[in-house]
Amino acid sequence: MTEVVIAGIGQTQVGEHWEISLRDLALNAIQAAHKDSGGLKPQALFVGNMLAPNLSNQAHLGALIADYAGLTGIEAITVEAAGASGGAALRQAYLAIASGMVDVALVVGVEKFTDKIGSEVEEAIASTSDSDFEAVQGLTATAQAALLMKRYMYENEVTANGFANFALTAHANGVANKNAMFRKAIKSETYAKAEMVSDQLNMFDVAPIADGTAALVLTRRDLLPSDYQNQLVKIAGSAASSDTLALHDRKDMLYFDTAQISAGKAMKQAGIILDQINFFEYHDAFSIYAALSLEAVGFAIKGCGWKLAENHEISLKGKIPCATMGGMKARGFPGGAAGVYQAVEAVTQLRGQAGANQIANAKYGLIQSLGGPASTAVSHILQRLD
Amino acid sequence: MTEVVIAGIGQTQVGEHWEISLRDLALNAIQAAHKDSGGLKPQALFVGNMLAPNLSNQAHLGALIADYAGLTGIEAITVEAAGASGGAALRQAYLAIASGMVDVALVVGVEKFTDKIGSEVEEAIASTSDSDFEAVQGLTATAQAALLMKRYMYENEVTANGFANFALTAHANGVANKNAMFRKAIKSETYAKAEMVSDQLNMFDVAPIADGTAALVLTRRDLLPSDYQNQLVKIAGSAASSDTLALHDRKDMLYFDTAQISAGKAMKQAGIILDQINFFEYHDAFSIYAALSLEAVGFAIKGCGWKLAENHEISLKGKIPCATMGGMKARGFPGGAAGVYQAVEAVTQLRGQAGANQIANAKYGLIQSLGGPASTAVSHILQRLD
Repeated sequence: MTEVVIAGIGQTQVGEHWEISLRDLALNAIQAAHKDSGGLKPQALFVGNMLAPNLSNQAHLGALIADYAGLTGIEAITVEAAGASGGAALRQAYLAIASGMVDVALVVGVEKFTDKIGSEVEEAIASTSDSDFEAVQGLTATAQAALLMKRYMYENEVTANGFANFALTAHANGVANKNAMFRKAIKSETYAKAEMVSDQLNMFDVAPIADGTAALVLTRRDLLPSDYQNQLVKIAGSAASSDTLALHDRKDMLYFDTAQISAGKAMKQAGIILDQINFFEYHDAFSIYAALSLEAVGFAIKGCGWKLAENHEISLKGKIPCATMGGMKARGFPGGAAGVYQAVEAVTQLRGQAGANQIANAKYGLIQSLGGPASTAVSHILQRLD
Repeated sequence: MTEVVIAGIGQTQVGEHWEISLRDLALNAIQAAHKDSGGLKPQALFVGNMLAPNLSNQAHLGALIADYAGLTGIEAITVEAAGASGGAALRQAYLAIASGMVDVALVVGVEKFTDKIGSEVEEAIASTSDSDFEAVQGLTATAQAALLMKRYMYENEVTANGFANFALTAHANGVANKNAMFRKAIKSETYAKAEMVSDQLNMFDVAPIADGTAALVLTRRDLLPSDYQNQLVKIAGSAASSDTLALHDRKDMLYFDTAQISAGKAMKQAGIILDQINFFEYHDAFSIYAALSLEAVGFAIKGCGWKLAENHEISLKGKIPCATMGGMKARGFPGGAAGVYQAVEAVTQLRGQAGANQIANAKYGLIQSLGGPASTAVSHILQRLD
């Protein structure tokens, strides 16, 4: 089987980038990834984007960004799967390389959320839920996650403070990440006193929607130049799965089937078991998502994901470090770019370039990009090649 | 190399479907394609859609449609490349099968344009052009095509009537296609007297935007059951290319580079030359696009594409039959579904099931899906296997 490797990474700081356009933003990450790859020339561009047609009045990003990046002529598309758009774009690039039809592929995740006001953004995000049965009732993604968290607390007899360490860990890890939106550690008391966003989610249970871009250069291992300088990172497993958009259509809304299925397939392809995974970049758009993801992948039994946080098992020196560069909570959640940031961060870990946040001897990282409440999940296992 | 075949096709009539939702519409084509394939079970869904997040307030179509079609759990994404979304979705499905990671893939193109009023649709379509430099000036896709046609007429000394046969041929071919939106032949005098939409485009130079859906089941040839009944149609070539969104950024706005590049690559992969192509499903959203596509692919020299129409060479018995089932002009232009309709129609021809519109001994068909004025082009060569 073809060995697909990530040969270049690029990213910008997540934040409020009112001063820069969508295409300029994307260009920053592309140029960084191109340079990092040693100048490999892409033949295909996969853009992960969630809401630019709505929020930036700009569809057709593939051709637009390819041209703007000086890559006029290459094939280019936008891949959309709500919040999982970044992971989905990575998977399409992976499939393109694996097919043997494309030698070098560029993935760029890009999103601008802050050009519009909050209510417009919430409404646009609601279009990624079931419009006819959920959004039409006024159910925003945040309100839905709040209901999910309440149900989880009721069924598992957890208090809201049981979720505190998801935020504390993310913020602690964000401090040393210069691309993180928030670089300030928070304390338990801060979490406990935080204002409620939507009962039972407080402001530290919700990742900030923001602007950002990240990029990857993928190629086949055997095509790398002999003087290739970067530590090799292979995509050892890649899989995706879908579920109902509407939560009411699920047998058990407190179990993320797609997270389980896609992670399981990716691990099987990589030929590894759960214990071999050194860190997990989960999709912590809401702390309840983090808990449910840990359970679905198998790091905790059902109803006990929050305990991994409470017992500090998700910290950098814990059993399964999560959100190692700040996660969506502290690095920020730039929609369709989020899944690409996860990959960039995982490569940083596997290359041993994560600085103060470095996981010792990291060989396998699991990254997982979710769309809605795991209506889509895309999982990848990245592996350091020795 | 893996042989990727189209094992099932499905479509609905293109038209104004106010009475049916986006998901129900897609379901119709999926069920038809599933049945036609003999019940093959897809593992992946590729949705070609252009503007649902804008026009139907519904993004995240992959998971939504997968679930609605009873395929909950499979991987599913939306592929967007403006008007080329359908062709681009087909290409992603092709790459997925070619990679060996997916055995059976479902492609569905779906679009609902008529739920909104015309000006809203024009504005949404304008978001697929360069928003910062074109759409912001009020330049709609139709107005842009009109300017392109005027320039073409000036440079090549053609009158507007030189384009008449693009519409006449399409409408003649639509008569026998029960899935076509318009099934009435038109005469030269009707074309000559038609009202102007945007000088120099009259109403017969513009394909009608409409609602529709079409679907394909793709698989590897070696995976087909021994009792497979359909005439085999192989995807012999697949390629895509991108160009600037804005016309003013091009060296020559009257040459569709991407149409040339993608068709050339697809032919090279298929191992055929132009003369072996038995019919061409071009992207006749505007008659000027049809002329420029014929030139870019090589059926006519630059400036002479219109002559193929004038000399009836694009009719069913001509040198290179085009729009054999009515094309976008008469079958209708349902955005992201258009490229999938082309594939369904080409398979119908290659299976010998095109009835009154059958091209004798058709072995190779070229289908080409464009986004904007060929800012994206996706070309496929479909081949009848004997």
